[in-house]
Amino acid sequence: MRNVLKAGDAFGTHRALQPQGALPQPADRLDNDFSRLFAGEMLVSVETLNVDAASFRQMEEAGGDVGERVLSTVRERGKQHNRVTGSGGMLLGRVAQLAEGRPAGEAIAVGDRIASLVSLSLTPLRIDEVRAVRPASAQLDVVGEAVLFASSPYAKMPSDFADRVALAALDVAGAAPQVARLVKPNATVVILGGGGKSGVLCACEARRAGGPGATVIAVESYAPYAQEIEALGVCSAVVRADARDPVATRAAVLDETGGREADLVLSCVNVDGAELSAIMCTRDRGITYFFAMSTSFTRAALGAEGVGKDVDLFIGNGYAHGHAEHTLDLLRSNASLRQLFERRYG
Amino acid sequence: MRNVLKAGDAFGTHRALQPQGALPQPADRLDNDFSRLFAGEMLVSVETLNVDAASFRQMEEAGGDVGERVLSTVRERGKQHNRVTGSGGMLLGRVAQLAEGRPAGEAIAVGDRIASLVSLSLTPLRIDEVRAVRPASAQLDVVGEAVLFASSPYAKMPSDFADRVALAALDVAGAAPQVARLVKPNATVVILGGGGKSGVLCACEARRAGGPGATVIAVESYAPYAQEIEALGVCSAVVRADARDPVATRAAVLDETGGREADLVLSCVNVDGAELSAIMCTRDRGITYFFAMSTSFTRAALGAEGVGKDVDLFIGNGYAHGHAEHTLDLLRSNASLRQLFERRYG
Repeated sequence: MRNVLKAGDAFGTHRALQPQGALPQPADRLDNDFSRLFAGEMLVSVETLNVDAASFRQMEEAGGDVGERVLSTVRERGKQHNRVTGSGGMLLGRVAQLAEGRPAGEAIAVGDRIASLVSLSLTPLRIDEVRAVRPASAQLDVVGEAVLFASSPYAKMPSDFADRVALAALDVAGAAPQVARLVKPNATVVILGGGGKSGVLCACEARRAGGPGATVIAVESYAPYAQEIEALGVCSAVVRADARDPVATRAAVLDETGGREADLVLSCVNVDGAELSAIMCTRDRGITYFFAMSTSFTRAALGAEGVGKDVDLFIGNGYAHGHAEHTLDLLRSNASLRQLFERRYG
Repeated sequence: MRNVLKAGDAFGTHRALQPQGALPQPADRLDNDFSRLFAGEMLVSVETLNVDAASFRQMEEAGGDVGERVLSTVRERGKQHNRVTGSGGMLLGRVAQLAEGRPAGEAIAVGDRIASLVSLSLTPLRIDEVRAVRPASAQLDVVGEAVLFASSPYAKMPSDFADRVALAALDVAGAAPQVARLVKPNATVVILGGGGKSGVLCACEARRAGGPGATVIAVESYAPYAQEIEALGVCSAVVRADARDPVATRAAVLDETGGREADLVLSCVNVDGAELSAIMCTRDRGITYFFAMSTSFTRAALGAEGVGKDVDLFIGNGYAHGHAEHTLDLLRSNASLRQLFERRYG
């Protein structure tokens, strides 16, 4: 049991060394001396670093050994925060100690296996040894320790899923709970990029929350994904359209709804320029929800104004209370969805 | 009275010549033959073009006569859509004809003076003569005609405001109505950039909607603006903090609220990097609303996830039903606010 100092805050500013008192993500260097902990911290015995794909590729292309590069970054910064790409990744490990001051009602115990759902770019980390580097999955097996703050989301790793399937689901864990909050029974819901990873979760959740009377329409231009989401049987229609073409997408969607615009449009695409399609398929005072990280703030804001659409525009929040369990439960409740994840991401 | 063809749609795709059937904003060239109109169109006799400031400056710096450049762009594209900056502006004029198929319940008549609240970059326009170029206000007085579509927002120019004051208010007309929708009585509301143009409107509306029991806190780093918003008397406190520093901003705000996070945080700043301040001042399940066009979609989405904040993140929609009248009424209802606008923007 490490000694616990009182001075910790929920956001981890107490671990910022350079500059002192900063948030840990923008900080240049973090305190990774875990001989003592601060109030609110969770000490984790790290097994695996799941490095961000862009960061891993950059390290490979820079030449030399990726393991050595990670060791050197962590030695210098106290975190695996790639200076070139700015990105981190996540980690898998076991809870080693829970300091006092953790959030109330937390269902976790020492020895539990967890995945951090917060970027490595803000997670204090010490690596004692790199045991293996697995380029195919951008993973490193290591011996080391890390600390999660009171505000840092994480998930208990489920025992009934393979690690890779669980990580794929946890990576987009925010999507389904937000859909569950927003979809009313019998609603009309449109999902752009409905065959992708977050798209299929949104479609299944929209059907679950909206019930049999809901109209759930997936828009998907990639033929294999369109077939897969169709085979799931949760959509009223799967429209093959390019979400970058707002006129064609709107026409194809209205064709399926008998001219009715959607109460909720979810943008889960991975391409630029789909903002206007999402907005133009949304009804007056409906909601356009952008999960797509390719979304442009200005194109969405000015796009809605340009066509005079009085709709609520949401930036997808990757975090929601209970999001990890919610998403894993959705996979457990739908065998076809689970098989799709195991086939595609297992 | 021009002849009206039936084929118009609400978004103006019928006016796109290149490519045909596109939305008018991305279209390269629009049909500006107003010898006939299409269903849903409003024909406007144009008096003044209020050119986007960035576009006007680009034309000045490119050399030659700005009037000639505008004439040449409009001749070539059928709209004042600057090819370098991509921006447009707005127009002032008088309603010349209302084609059948306009939105129901529209309170406008031939002869009324209006301002378009949709960009010139998507407004079909023909210019017969440039009468004056006013560099100080980036305006051109012209003789010409334009068409607004059924979906294009516009405002009837008020007779009780100077044009410049009305245009300054109409430019940010979306802000106050959104605040009125979101602020409940006795709510705690924080406005980042509370002394700026949209910030002061948000602060006054938050007080009006939240009532005397509401806690309204403006964060403003520019001293003259901080003094002006303080003098309005609508804020519970005006905090001098730099919204780019989330730790300091959060501490200063919580200091004023006795440690309570806000139900609603409005970001009205004009600088980069204020996303995390806005998110970190918002309570669990509260709303963070980004009016600032400098907002980064990814910084907001990943920022909330990184600190585990389960908040609703909104992209500010510049359009809301009745937004122009709402905002002008707010100015009419508060003499000090109106004087601030007349002093600053008149």
